[in-house]
Amino acid sequence: MTAPPALTLDDVHAAARRLLGHIHRTPVISSQSVDDASGYRVFLKCESLQRAGSFKIRGALNKLLSLTPAERARGVVAYSSGNHAQGVALAARMTGTSAIICMPRDAPALKLEATRNYGAEVVFYDRQTDDRAALAARLVKETGRVLVPPYDDYAIMAGQGTAALELLQDVPSLDALVTPVGGGGLMAGCSTVAKALVPGLTVVGVEADTANDTALSLARGERVSIPPPPTIADGIRVTSPGVLTFPILQRHLAGIALVTDEEITGAVRFLALRARVVVEPTGAVGAAAALAGKLPVPRGARVGVVLSGGNIAPDLLVRILQAA
Amino acid sequence: MTAPPALTLDDVHAAARRLLGHIHRTPVISSQSVDDASGYRVFLKCESLQRAGSFKIRGALNKLLSLTPAERARGVVAYSSGNHAQGVALAARMTGTSAIICMPRDAPALKLEATRNYGAEVVFYDRQTDDRAALAARLVKETGRVLVPPYDDYAIMAGQGTAALELLQDVPSLDALVTPVGGGGLMAGCSTVAKALVPGLTVVGVEADTANDTALSLARGERVSIPPPPTIADGIRVTSPGVLTFPILQRHLAGIALVTDEEITGAVRFLALRARVVVEPTGAVGAAAALAGKLPVPRGARVGVVLSGGNIAPDLLVRILQAA
Repeated sequence: MTAPPALTLDDVHAAARRLLGHIHRTPVISSQSVDDASGYRVFLKCESLQRAGSFKIRGALNKLLSLTPAERARGVVAYSSGNHAQGVALAARMTGTSAIICMPRDAPALKLEATRNYGAEVVFYDRQTDDRAALAARLVKETGRVLVPPYDDYAIMAGQGTAALELLQDVPSLDALVTPVGGGGLMAGCSTVAKALVPGLTVVGVEADTANDTALSLARGERVSIPPPPTIADGIRVTSPGVLTFPILQRHLAGIALVTDEEITGAVRFLALRARVVVEPTGAVGAAAALAGKLPVPRGARVGVVLSGGNIAPDLLVRILQAA
Repeated sequence: MTAPPALTLDDVHAAARRLLGHIHRTPVISSQSVDDASGYRVFLKCESLQRAGSFKIRGALNKLLSLTPAERARGVVAYSSGNHAQGVALAARMTGTSAIICMPRDAPALKLEATRNYGAEVVFYDRQTDDRAALAARLVKETGRVLVPPYDDYAIMAGQGTAALELLQDVPSLDALVTPVGGGGLMAGCSTVAKALVPGLTVVGVEADTANDTALSLARGERVSIPPPPTIADGIRVTSPGVLTFPILQRHLAGIALVTDEEITGAVRFLALRARVVVEPTGAVGAAAALAGKLPVPRGARVGVVLSGGNIAPDLLVRILQAA
């Protein structure tokens, strides 16, 4: 006997109603260059053009709008390497809530600055030695604030799933859906939508080859931890899949495609120069897998790829473009 | 007594029907950063994400689809510094027609290569000394091919106007519409749509300050010629407005905003790093005028800006980003 799913299409529809008018409905673009280079028919869901520069505002704002007024009045706490920080900070500003964000000391300066500009207070931790979840839990205990987890939360997952809802509304006939996998929140939400709307659709997660915790966990059939991975894709430097997200990924994923940092930067370059959108390394891993032909679908398949974020430091973008 | 307009909204609707399904409906995006920096509420119509990288495919394909089968069978001739060349070359391939394109010897290598990749034959001219229109006319005479002019043609203008039609369908309540002005084809089509759908809308053209032939012509009340201008915006290095486009611009424009090359490259940089889209210098002149606060509309006005193209050479993009 299987337990009923903990996250449903209805949850994502409810999130979409909450978010309507507050965030961008991001465009889905296609590019002959991407199609020619990948061999697939690719539809790029540009969360790089989302408010605060990534999909993270979807989950964060859905979570904050799901709180009671009393909870919102106490403020929120979050931990993040960057985009979730910005998402929570902006969502807090949009809902009149105060936010404390725990960020790694080596977070990209751009993401740190943007988080502060949205009015959040930043507390630093060390990515190699500190337990960021424990730090956040202590802040929650000391301040009475509500924790806004980066992925292991059904309101967060439901919010992230609205990206796939929009994509499948715009392009109903997809054969495959591809998203980056860090903690699994984006993929949990998106795969729930995709499998509910198009049961035969092939769902493929993408990880950096050095950040393969979900690939290992799926192979093992249980959550596996890896050391902090060094990939250039800073948004998916995660050491293990979430407790709540992993069973959802187990149920939905056809597999994980692994991409190298070179493939990732190549995709950032290709997207900027040929598809004409600026995407950060993490945001480009899905495109990297497509361009490398690493998806378990036939040539010509109609593939939806979530470009998850566009928050790239100017000097990194220049370095990546110069490598052409 | 005023003559009836030579280009009407109906012509643009007819073009839109011809183009439907053959080209992209490009997204309209907005960016809090652009709004904050400009003081306007800006809606960016991303023709940089159009097929062949600019709006030019709209006019070129509308023209080719308006020809008789016998005309199409004879092939076409066009002259262009770049984007019209690619537009005609792709439109020719899409309609099974052959194309000869006259391009300046100093055309950007990227645009030259793309034009050839679409299957067109390229003939060179010297931008300082040759009369490209005469060269094209000679080719037409010698080969029996049909000329596809870059702007001074009602089928071309009607095609370009479909960009404004889509923009006003997506954002009906604009206060102002801003496009680059080179020969005036894009603006003739777009302003015809805008003034027909929203008579009170303020239409503003943008030129580089060294390529101010239309600004001078509007002030003089007749077409004025200037020497070949040196602006970085290679798509609007035009020496005089078109014979057919100029009266349309005279009727519709509230004015021309002039931007410096520094403002143009600043806009390219801002759009890449903050709005996360890659736009070529010519494509960014409208955004440059908005970011410089040079539009004759009040703060907070809802301004539609056509980002006309995204075909920028990698090394130029890097140089512009490095100037940050």
